[in-house]
Order: sequence, then C-alpha cells, then structure tokens
Amino acid sequence: MTREAIIERLAKLDTCAVSDGMDRLGLKGATFGVRPMWPCPKIVRRAITMKIKPVGLDKSKQHLGTQAIVAANPGDIIVIDNGGRPDTSCWGGLLSLAALTKGISGVVIDGACRDVDESREVGFPVYARAAVPMTARSRVMEESCNREIEFAGVQVHPGDLVIADGSGIVIIPRAKEEEVVREAEAVTATEARMAEGIREGMSVLEVLERLGYEQMLTRNSRSSQSRWCRMPWIVWEFTGSAWAFNPSLRVVRRRAGRSP
Amino acid sequence: MTREAIIERLAKLDTCAVSDGMDRLGLKGATFGVRPMWPCPKIVRRAITMKIKPVGLDKSKQHLGTQAIVAANPGDIIVIDNGGRPDTSCWGGLLSLAALTKGISGVVIDGACRDVDESREVGFPVYARAAVPMTARSRVMEESCNREIEFAGVQVHPGDLVIADGSGIVIIPRAKEEEVVREAEAVTATEARMAEGIREGMSVLEVLERLGYEQMLTRNSRSSQSRWCRMPWIVWEFTGSAWAFNPSLRVVRRRAGRSP
Amino acid sequence: MTREAIIERLAKLDTCAVSDGMDRLGLKGATFGVRPMWPCPKIVRRAITMKIKPVGLDKSKQHLGTQAIVAANPGDIIVIDNGGRPDTSCWGGLLSLAALTKGISGVVIDGACRDVDESREVGFPVYARAAVPMTARSRVMEESCNREIEFAGVQVHPGDLVIADGSGIVIIPRAKEEEVVREAEAVTATEARMAEGIREGMSVLEVLERLGYEQMLTRNSRSSQSRWCRMPWIVWEFTGSAWAFNPSLRVVRRRAGRSP
Repeated sequence: MTREAIIERLAKLDTCAVSDGMDRLGLKGATFGVRPMWPCPKIVRRAITMKIKPVGLDKSKQHLGTQAIVAANPGDIIVIDNGGRPDTSCWGGLLSLAALTKGISGVVIDGACRDVDESREVGFPVYARAAVPMTARSRVMEESCNREIEFAGVQVHPGDLVIADGSGIVIIPRAKEEEVVREAEAVTATEARMAEGIREGMSVLEVLERLGYEQMLTRNSRSSQSRWCRMPWIVWEFTGSAWAFNPSLRVVRRRAGRSP
Repeated sequence: MTREAIIERLAKLDTCAVSDGMDRLGLKGATFGVRPMWPCPKIVRRAITMKIKPVGLDKSKQHLGTQAIVAANPGDIIVIDNGGRPDTSCWGGLLSLAALTKGISGVVIDGACRDVDESREVGFPVYARAAVPMTARSRVMEESCNREIEFAGVQVHPGDLVIADGSGIVIIPRAKEEEVVREAEAVTATEARMAEGIREGMSVLEVLERLGYEQMLTRNSRSSQSRWCRMPWIVWEFTGSAWAFNPSLRVVRRRAGRSP
Repeated sequence: MTREAIIERLAKLDTCAVSDGMDRLGLKGATFGVRPMWPCPKIVRRAITMKIKPVGLDKSKQHLGTQAIVAANPGDIIVIDNGGRPDTSCWGGLLSLAALTKGISGVVIDGACRDVDESREVGFPVYARAAVPMTARSRVMEESCNREIEFAGVQVHPGDLVIADGSGIVIIPRAKEEEVVREAEAVTATEARMAEGIREGMSVLEVLERLGYEQMLTRNSRSSQSRWCRMPWIVWEFTGSAWAFNPSLRVVRRRAGRSP
C-alpha cells in the first residue's frame, strides 16, 4: 500500500472538518444520504470510479465491478455512481471479498448494495443508500470505469481523495487536496481548543462566541486564528482566590482550587 | 437538576403509551421520522426550543445553539425546528459537549445533525432525521430561541414535556401534562396486565378482546377500566384438574398443575 | 412446529440467493425498503397474511392482528400489508409477546411498527419500514386476514414462503417453491466456489468472468453449471515451481509453496 503523507494527514480528520475546510475554499465536496451499511470504520483514500447504467438492448459483457477491482491500487476506495437508484444492488458479497483480498479500503455507493451481512462478516466497509436483495445482473451494467462520475451531487475524478464516516462522505478534488487538508487541519485544531475550553469549564458562549467559531469559516478571519496557539494557563492568587489566565483562549477564570 | 414529580412519573413510561394517552384526550403530540442517531437512551424532560432558518442577506451574529444552551436548565431537552431539512446540520460535536457539560439531557432535531461519532463518544443523546457532514455555518442561522416552534408537525412551546425513545418522539403541552401522564399511566397499567395474561398462557384473543384493548383509547370505556385492579388467582380442584379464576382478568383457566 | 424439508433447505440460503433464483425463473418476489427494526436474526417460514385499511365510518370490531396470531401455525411469519404507510403503527409490543408465545417466527410489515425496544427485549423479529409511536387504534383497522395481499409491490398468498434478512425480504409463491429453492441452492453453491477461488488467490477477473458469474442467472447456461462440482487441486512441480490445476475451477495457478 503506497504511503502518502497527505492521506496520513487526512486520516486524522473527519468528514465534518473536511467539509468545513472545503467551505472555506468555496469548494463543493460534501454529500448526504450515503451512510455506513454496518457499523464500519472511517475510510480515507483515493477514488477508483465506476458508473452504472440500466441494461438496455446492449447487455453487460463482464461482471460489474471487476474492472475497478483490477484497476485499483491497494488502499483505494471504489466510488460508484448509480444515480441514487434504490431498487437494485450494484455491490455484493463476492465483490467485497475480492476487493478485501486486493487490499481495497472500502466502497461508497450512490445507490444500493446487497449481502450486507457478508460484508460485515469479512470486515469490508460498505457505504450506500440502502440494502436490497436484487442483483445488478440483467438490471444494470457498467457504463464506465475510472472516468469522471457524479456522486450524490458532487463531481468525482479518479484519484480524488475520499473520506467516509458516520456523518457522511466528502470528495476532495486532487488539485485542491493540499489546501483542503490544511484548512481542515486548522478547523480541527480550533475545535480541539474549543472542546478543551468547554471541558475546562468555560461557558459555551465564551467558547463559541469569543473564540470566533461562527466566523471560523471565513478566510478573512484566518490570519488572527493562525496566531492562536495553545498556551499554558497562568495562575495567581488574588483576594484569597485562585485565578487563571490563558493567553491563547483569551479568558480569565476564577477557580476554587489553585490550578485552573 | 430540578426534580419534578411529573417528570419522574413520565420517565417510567414510553412514547407509545404517551401517544395513546394523548389519543384518549384528543391531543396531537406524537411525531415520526426523527430517530436516535446512535443507540442512545430514552430521554424525558422539558423543552428548550429553537428555530432555524436559511441564511439570507442577514447573516448569523452568533453561533447557532449557544442561546439555547445558556437558557437551558440542567436536564432540559433542546428541541430544534429546521423544517426537516436534510442537507445541512444544525447540531454538532462541540454543542453536544457543551450541552452535556451543562447537564442538558439531549437534543431532538427536525432536520439533520453531524459529528454523530463524537456525540456517541461523549454519550450525549441526539435524535434527528439524518446525519450530514455539512455545517450550519453560512447555510442556516437561528431565527428564534425559546419561542413557539413546529416540530415534525406538532406545535411546541418552551417548557412542554418531551419524551424520545426508539419508537419516536412525543411532545406534551404543559397545560395538559398532568392529564396526559395520568392517561398514559392507565394505558401502561392495562398493557402490563395484558402482558401478564399472555405470559400466563391466555390466548391473544382472550387478552386483546376480552380485556377490551381495542376500546382502551375511548374515554367512555375508561370508567369500567378504572375498576380493574389486578387480583390474585383463585384456584380450586374440579373433576381431577386444577382450575383457576381471576376476577380482574375475568377468565377461568384449566391448568395441569395446581397453580395457574 | 411442523418440520418441512423445503423450509430447512431455505433456511440455509439468504435473500440475495433466493432473489437470484427467482430471477432465473422470471418470477417477482424480492422487495426493498422493509428492514430489520433491531439487529434481529434471519427468519424463514410460511406466510400468514393480513391487510390493513384506514378507519372510516365502519370501525374495527376486534384488535388488529389477533386473527392472524390465532390462525398461525407455530413457526409462521405474519406478513402485513399497510401500503407502506409511515405514520401509524400496525404492530406493537403486546402482539410481539403474544406471537412469540404462539411460536410465530416474526413479522414483516409494509408499513410502520412501534414498541421496537419491547420487541427486541423479548427477542421477537420485526421487519418494517419505520418505527412510530402512534397506535393503530382509531387510525387503521384490519381489512382481511389470510387472503391475498400486496407486500412492497409483490403479490403474497397465505402459505407462500417468506425469507427476511439484513438485505431485505423475498416472497416465494408456494407453487414455485421447489424450483426457486433449487435454483437458489445452485446460485449459493456457485458463489461458494467463487468465494473459495478468491480466497485461494484467484483474481476477481478469473473468478467472475471465467466462472461465468455474469451469465449465471440465464437458464441457458445452467446445463454447463450443473456439470460443475468442486474437485481437488492437482499439484505438480515444473521448472522449479509448484503448479496447481483445478478442473472444476478450470484454472492453473503457480504457487510459491507446494500446495495451492
């Protein structure tokens, strides 16, 4: 499995932070309606795409999905465009097994899958709109493999980055991945500071308003944010109480004990 | 956390019994389509309401949800009206953390949430229509806090009682809560007697027809129901068999053994 | 509980294989949209049907579902046609308890249920479109019991075979059950061979194309398939490597070790 620094950085984030990062850059990549078919782990990798269409007078000459599995590098994620169609599967247990054997990370489907129980048993992550028993055979066929597709309203190209977790799926265009991941890392760092503030007893108003969360996604305010770095609390005693000041959180708190 | 007798009584019931209690009184309070986002526990408390609207020329001046968290009493449930909108979150992980810290019982959303995994990790109950990665920021904003809202077709006022579990969510208007809980308790007691009858071997026809379950929700029949109280079985031997009669279940049964 | 050979054979299959078997025979039986309401086990048995309609000027004279429970043989599955209606339950906790006591295998509902938590607690399998708190009483009533119904687009007669699992529900007409199960067994056997091939290191192309999976559902190709039977690998050494040939998989593989 190729190790790419950008993927290792992305793997530390989640879909919400990445969606925010794309918002900051004015990019469209977040989707909704495609969700984990079993309580499967987050997956983060590059896209192998495939497009499905209904069978017509021309019939399928090969099994749907095999081209994608053959074309995939270990770790890749197969991204399937079946236009959200709910009444026929375009992924099943044998493909899960074959993809797993190839080292593929998972599949995300704008449509339905089947053999959910089998995929769970072998531990292969499947994200889809729904599960159905009906096979693809004689109903739908592969239109293309590894060309541009549409996934739940988002344009996807082969090699784009994909991240999928319990909140949904986000596609990051390859040409923008460095920027998106950088922005998403900034969002994540800011939210971590905020979570810390809340855990330390700051009110939600202090945290969300004073720390400027609402403005977090506007690029103009980023210069000030980039100055933030988490500093230690400065504690002193005053009129018999312990006080603490944190320069990065820009807040003073009185504490009963001595350490804030 | 304020301890209210009515809440402690309500906490022993479930949404189905409460829905039945409201049916008896001709009240509208049960909703469908909003469900637990993780296998979270039942929540029962008073409503803090908030209404969300799309961002337009006027933008949000503060982070959505902070007013509600600040206004909430420990134990309250935040009830969010986003008109069922599926494509943008109006609740996330930081709000879950802040609400949990404040002692808030949970949130119910006529719309979508995000950061499901985080909410599960901190153990904060979130009921919603769906999960999405897209933030509320620059998409939707708070229109009001703690005013009348609509939740999945039901009118909700601040301070109304809320009960949410695996079957859905029911809102109880404050002015009717005493009556509703009393009716729901009667439903629950009747169903408990019926379940007991079934477990003791009565046929479903005996239980559901003879015990008048079908008529249970009509107020006219309640006078007779209120006379029901679970009495012990009276057992006697007759023609070599053991017989049992239960006055409250109004049924005679023959048993192989001596105790019914 | 009556033991029928056909049911014991069907119990070894899953909905996907049965759906494929019906495809082969040109029969319509697979449905989508009705799914397990808790992580309940697969159920496989004969149908007791019931049809629900809205309450009008004529009201229900008996509790919905009791006729079906009384009519059912131990092991049967109750199949409910409420036309997919999402806003009112047609199955609840007391019925689950009564059905379980009667030895009924489960219920599948083209509509909504309630008391999901209770059904899970007593271990009674419930498949439905959704859960709601609203009772059937004074909203819907039984139109018929054990007559022909429509279930999610499929015609169902009393006594038809039903199979339900994580991928959905399939109905098998009684007159065709022998043929359907035979075809589904053939599909399952073929897929098992393919899975074995994949686990043994064959490429997905070899397995899915060479083994003719794509053509698997056309009856014309079955004659050749029926000749397949899994034979042992024949291993020999050649130019210093170990080679293996499998007549039933029709493939030669080179292996590093001696056994394929």
